[in-house]
Amino acid sequence: MIDQATINELRNIVGKKNVDTSKISLDTYMYDAGLVYGNPEVIVFVENKQQIAQVLKLANSKKIPVTPRGNGMGVSGGAVANRGGIVLVMTRMNRILEIDVENRIAVVEPGVLNIDLQRAVAPYGLVYRPDPASQKVSTLGGNLGENAGGMVGIKYGVTKDHIVGAELVLPDGQFVQIGGKVEQIVPELNFNALLIGSEGTLGVVTEIYCKLSPASKAVKTMLTAYKTLEDAGRAVSAIIAHGIIPCTLELMDNNVIKAVEEWLHIGLPLQAGAVLLIEVDGWDAGLDRQAQQIIDICKEVGAIEISLAKNAQERDNLWMARRNAIGAMGRLRPNYDMEDATVPRTKLPQILKTVTKMAEKYNITIGMLAHAGDGNLHPLVLFDERDEDEMKRVHKIRHELFRTALDLGGTLSGEHGIGLGKLEFMTWAIKPEYLKFMRHERLAFDPNEILNGGKFVPETAA
Amino acid sequence: MIDQATINELRNIVGKKNVDTSKISLDTYMYDAGLVYGNPEVIVFVENKQQIAQVLKLANSKKIPVTPRGNGMGVSGGAVANRGGIVLVMTRMNRILEIDVENRIAVVEPGVLNIDLQRAVAPYGLVYRPDPASQKVSTLGGNLGENAGGMVGIKYGVTKDHIVGAELVLPDGQFVQIGGKVEQIVPELNFNALLIGSEGTLGVVTEIYCKLSPASKAVKTMLTAYKTLEDAGRAVSAIIAHGIIPCTLELMDNNVIKAVEEWLHIGLPLQAGAVLLIEVDGWDAGLDRQAQQIIDICKEVGAIEISLAKNAQERDNLWMARRNAIGAMGRLRPNYDMEDATVPRTKLPQILKTVTKMAEKYNITIGMLAHAGDGNLHPLVLFDERDEDEMKRVHKIRHELFRTALDLGGTLSGEHGIGLGKLEFMTWAIKPEYLKFMRHERLAFDPNEILNGGKFVPETAA
Repeated sequence: MIDQATINELRNIVGKKNVDTSKISLDTYMYDAGLVYGNPEVIVFVENKQQIAQVLKLANSKKIPVTPRGNGMGVSGGAVANRGGIVLVMTRMNRILEIDVENRIAVVEPGVLNIDLQRAVAPYGLVYRPDPASQKVSTLGGNLGENAGGMVGIKYGVTKDHIVGAELVLPDGQFVQIGGKVEQIVPELNFNALLIGSEGTLGVVTEIYCKLSPASKAVKTMLTAYKTLEDAGRAVSAIIAHGIIPCTLELMDNNVIKAVEEWLHIGLPLQAGAVLLIEVDGWDAGLDRQAQQIIDICKEVGAIEISLAKNAQERDNLWMARRNAIGAMGRLRPNYDMEDATVPRTKLPQILKTVTKMAEKYNITIGMLAHAGDGNLHPLVLFDERDEDEMKRVHKIRHELFRTALDLGGTLSGEHGIGLGKLEFMTWAIKPEYLKFMRHERLAFDPNEILNGGKFVPETAA
Repeated sequence: MIDQATINELRNIVGKKNVDTSKISLDTYMYDAGLVYGNPEVIVFVENKQQIAQVLKLANSKKIPVTPRGNGMGVSGGAVANRGGIVLVMTRMNRILEIDVENRIAVVEPGVLNIDLQRAVAPYGLVYRPDPASQKVSTLGGNLGENAGGMVGIKYGVTKDHIVGAELVLPDGQFVQIGGKVEQIVPELNFNALLIGSEGTLGVVTEIYCKLSPASKAVKTMLTAYKTLEDAGRAVSAIIAHGIIPCTLELMDNNVIKAVEEWLHIGLPLQAGAVLLIEVDGWDAGLDRQAQQIIDICKEVGAIEISLAKNAQERDNLWMARRNAIGAMGRLRPNYDMEDATVPRTKLPQILKTVTKMAEKYNITIGMLAHAGDGNLHPLVLFDERDEDEMKRVHKIRHELFRTALDLGGTLSGEHGIGLGKLEFMTWAIKPEYLKFMRHERLAFDPNEILNGGKFVPETAA
């Protein structure tokens, strides 16, 4: 329990208006976008990095848990206060500190929204490549913590490939600068890479150095439809096998198609078992041929419908289904879980079949979304959390899904992390000696485990 | 001093023929390609990973220094036994264990030559992207330890971007598997990234998972010449500023041009202050236009000569100068140092000017080679090590070069590491608290500091 003396000290650090213990705020900041719940005791809004350092020093001296939080758009519980204590809200640290066009680096505070960085660099013909579906609402600090992916991961990689450094505050209030503005290798142990995807367990990030890339000169967008989910899976394999690297290769199954079509009436093929949204980008001269080659491949594996966008508006139309897929599925039942697992690309047809069978076996509706080119699945599992029996079946589906992904050589997460949501599976996925390593590492940064304690790495890995 | 009992134990582990204490072998394995010297006591050739684990356990229990070594092609002393003890030669662990064409991963032992992997995957239309100039003689284990770069770093990145996992033996003989065959993010602390470029201080790598990429469909190669070094520097900036990403952008100055031409007579423009070797690759349809745009840009900044290769043979001719640059310079004087520093790309013209001035000031011949697109300089400093006064001037040049690179926001190394050669500069480059971090980390892996002790991280960083 946080006592009044501590509350007063927090008020001294960040100002009275930035320390909130009201019931409504505690309730508001209790959960994340995956509806994982915590029990925060106080919400602290920070406005600059000195405040963060002081809050951490105070919390560390009293061993009070601290949960840094951006917009709370994670789905695995990374941003929820599972052990009580302080929720450290970073959203007011939302300044873009520098855009170095020549060196193609942006220095940002962690509360900057992904989309705001995109908008700020677009006038220079630049882009920050990772574009998670949540980019309009998720912060770059959160993206860093979870190693967020996006729609172009297959070609351009994920957050770890586009953040070249950061400034960090440790629980003892010490600032450490990691990496730097020169993207070229800095000859040091690569703590930058260790930090990205560390789910807020190593320190609190106060500045982030984002690598910017030249925007693509041109793009071609196709929506291709298949009789069965397996045909779509085979199309993915065939495209990759031909040495073509699209920037986008997104899969949606019939459940998603129907949900979107019934809601938005955009003319999706309701009879299709699955559609693939495919984009190629680069220099316009070569693109027509690439697009044609993809179309030929898709026909070969039996595509039943192919649309190629002729202009920006047609492109937006084709994207509309993907962008609204989660919302459309969410309309069907009171609750949904968006799962996140990966398999090697070649195992995609196999796991798609397994998920279809599981849905039948447990009589649960699952809509399949996947960053197919990355082998990253996002099955949307629909249910009503008031139905105890259904919950049991959902629970079984999750277990079987992750067991299957691991058995196929995959992983527990593609881009949303472990947090609390998948902690129970970590011992399946990662060997004890490696978990020990991870735990050792986190305690080196945060000896009292005040930052996101009890998440990511099971405590049994002592 | 290693005693006879230890030698006997080593013989029991690897066999008598694989333990060598002869004067000629100790002399042969004493230095690396940068002529950094060590003083090995015994050379141990290992043939499998169980032997490595046993050698390490033995050495660890007796606190005997161990220096893992590939082909000794490093230039910063990473592969030399600065503290005596065991040189652990990995070159017999040179099996390619698996080429998984579908998932585009090769599993190799650390003694495999970079070029041998390239040759093995080429029939599948695949390539392992990092191609250091030393690729015919350097091992993938060495490439991993130093985070080797290459000729295509500007477009395709360096070793850290193409190794997705490894198996490691720790000094206590324990095996740890890091990362995995699915390139997609594994939700764990990213020790794989920490390992790459750790200069053999964290453990001994026994298997490496290399990411393979589809080979480019086509390539266009140009050699462009400029009146001055600065013009060449401006051409680099202009190409990058136009949003073109060549796969190769290599700079050679007049000293290098003359040295190569006098040796090989390939028709290089002797009057040029510098040449740039430029390559674009990708889909052939778009390439002509990209090449033309580059030619236009080069003309605009005042290129005095431009050759575009019309076929593979002409391409080889254009590459010949770059491939033989170091050899050509090496013919001129008894000794040379190949330096390795980076600056932000935009500071390239500035540091090129500084190096030219230093050469004049100290009356030392310096040939400038640079992976210009990466801001990675390799000045070749010529001297005679028997000339004491000259050595003093060379020493001053090194100090001024690295001081200047750091002042411009650069780093101490682009691809050859710190080792022993640049240890003295580490406190200039990296803050004390960060060096402490690095030292802490290495001791977590290797508490007795038997692996490459006294290299990379200054011991004062306690």
